[in-house]
Amino acid sequence: MLKVPDHQVAGHQARNGQLGPLIDDSGRFYKPLQDDDRGSKEVAFYSSFSSNTRVPDHIRRLFPVFHGTQLLEASDGSGLRPHLVLEDVVSSRSHPSVMDIKIGSRTWYPEASEDYIQRCFKKDRETSSLSLGFRISGLQVYGNEESGFWKPERKLVQNLSAADVRVVLKKFVSSNLPVDPNSDPDCSFAASVYGGSTGILAQLLELKAWFEDQTMYHLNSCSVLLVYEKEKVLKGERSDAEVKLIDFAHVTEGKDIIDHNFLGGLCSLIKFISEILTSPDECTTKACLRDSEKDKEILTSPDESTTKVCLQDSDKNTNYSENGTIEGM
Amino acid sequence: MLKVPDHQVAGHQARNGQLGPLIDDSGRFYKPLQDDDRGSKEVAFYSSFSSNTRVPDHIRRLFPVFHGTQLLEASDGSGLRPHLVLEDVVSSRSHPSVMDIKIGSRTWYPEASEDYIQRCFKKDRETSSLSLGFRISGLQVYGNEESGFWKPERKLVQNLSAADVRVVLKKFVSSNLPVDPNSDPDCSFAASVYGGSTGILAQLLELKAWFEDQTMYHLNSCSVLLVYEKEKVLKGERSDAEVKLIDFAHVTEGKDIIDHNFLGGLCSLIKFISEILTSPDECTTKACLRDSEKDKEILTSPDESTTKVCLQDSDKNTNYSENGTIEGM
Repeated sequence: MLKVPDHQVAGHQARNGQLGPLIDDSGRFYKPLQDDDRGSKEVAFYSSFSSNTRVPDHIRRLFPVFHGTQLLEASDGSGLRPHLVLEDVVSSRSHPSVMDIKIGSRTWYPEASEDYIQRCFKKDRETSSLSLGFRISGLQVYGNEESGFWKPERKLVQNLSAADVRVVLKKFVSSNLPVDPNSDPDCSFAASVYGGSTGILAQLLELKAWFEDQTMYHLNSCSVLLVYEKEKVLKGERSDAEVKLIDFAHVTEGKDIIDHNFLGGLCSLIKFISEILTSPDECTTKACLRDSEKDKEILTSPDESTTKVCLQDSDKNTNYSENGTIEGM
Repeated sequence: MLKVPDHQVAGHQARNGQLGPLIDDSGRFYKPLQDDDRGSKEVAFYSSFSSNTRVPDHIRRLFPVFHGTQLLEASDGSGLRPHLVLEDVVSSRSHPSVMDIKIGSRTWYPEASEDYIQRCFKKDRETSSLSLGFRISGLQVYGNEESGFWKPERKLVQNLSAADVRVVLKKFVSSNLPVDPNSDPDCSFAASVYGGSTGILAQLLELKAWFEDQTMYHLNSCSVLLVYEKEKVLKGERSDAEVKLIDFAHVTEGKDIIDHNFLGGLCSLIKFISEILTSPDECTTKACLRDSEKDKEILTSPDESTTKVCLQDSDKNTNYSENGTIEGM
């Protein structure tokens, strides 16, 4: 019996008669192929990657397992449609905290159509991709049985400042409720989720080392998914924190050049996560101070009640000049 | 007595009544401040950087020493003009081989004017910046007393393919004459110039490690200069190969974010140079095979005689599909 995934945080969703991915009870994720060439490109990537003997095992496990394609009834009622059959990366978890981060300051690529290039160019500038080298495409953070998930809207998280991203990455690994605007994220799970020899940082560093060398694929517009189960950490069990790369509809051949765009963005994300691990004292930063310039608010609706959560670091009062140039440093 | 530099390979030149940099006999390089804000931005960067105690010594030595500014007669006869006073990085060399490589797949930055952004966006796509993450802005390679320097025109080197860049990087460290289209670059200086604990690769790797961490400066549109003296290597003396960063008119503040654009491009360059060191067998590749697709020729004029030098690796016959997508890999 196929159903709509509970823990999808970004991308097209199969709700309300829309076309989107489905899952089953055996841990498989069915992603419908889109009509344009994106679907066939993603199949081509998975086919190439899954049979590529030059991909080392410790890198392969950072990608969902590929089980081919299958004709299935599409979620929008349009009839049979080919679907990618993939590993459902959250199937073994009951309350996964998930973050989808689209990597790269540039989501377009030379081989794309001029129309696509211009649309991406505009969006990369409007979101945090250009400045940070990545943008958060979606997230859910589990609070507890009562509060459920904190799941801010996509358009509210994809253009966060560096300070805001830092707060979100802290909230992602904190024991206090992410929806509470007055509580400081305590980062109490940072060491077990981000840190350690098998934690998220270690996995991202393995990925980085591979991207410094591999010239086979350019993962344009691809995301890394960060996943872990809060309850496991609370029980003192070994963290099951995982990094998975997803969304390969825009992959191109590397042509003997490394994917410097993905690598640069990945290094930027690594720097943010490293700082949380190396500067735990900064985790006592007050998490909610109104950003006076932009008057930004992040509205979320957990359990249908609307909660305001402002994302602003308070201890970063650096004064930058309007145009970002160096003035009297 | 100020004079026009002999070994400048890129940028505005102080010849024929044009405004450009001058040098003296004491090893100083005088760079005129331009009328727009580029001059003042570069002064601001050098002032900040030279007094920044957070810059470690092994990184500081990769930048020209800054001696303040000075009012001097401009080379275009327009009268007194403030000049940056810098270390002349080639002053101690008689026949330096020099390569100027502008780092980054993107030379524009969010704080720039829309006009500047659009011009850079266009140029980055027209040159190899977008695909390689860097472009060669100019170079000169010393042959011998008779042949002098091989100094291809700027517009011919700034849009090289990956294969062409590989050939140029090999010619840069080869003992056979770079102007000879029929000779394979022998890479006989690769180990002493690129390799070793003090070679160019080691210096680039130090720079890379710093860029993975530093969030103070974004070096937009900045170049790395690779410099060495062939005659020293021929005499068996220790190589004096040096990396120097230059051109800081577009530096912006890092705002707690690493310079992922510079870092990505730098990693791409590092990969090219590493490959030359780790695959010396590929140095026997025939260096001149006409690129049939583009019919590209590089015309140079050493000693006023015109020599055709085709830059094309012959052993890379990978077939890529037209739009660069993965087909049957």
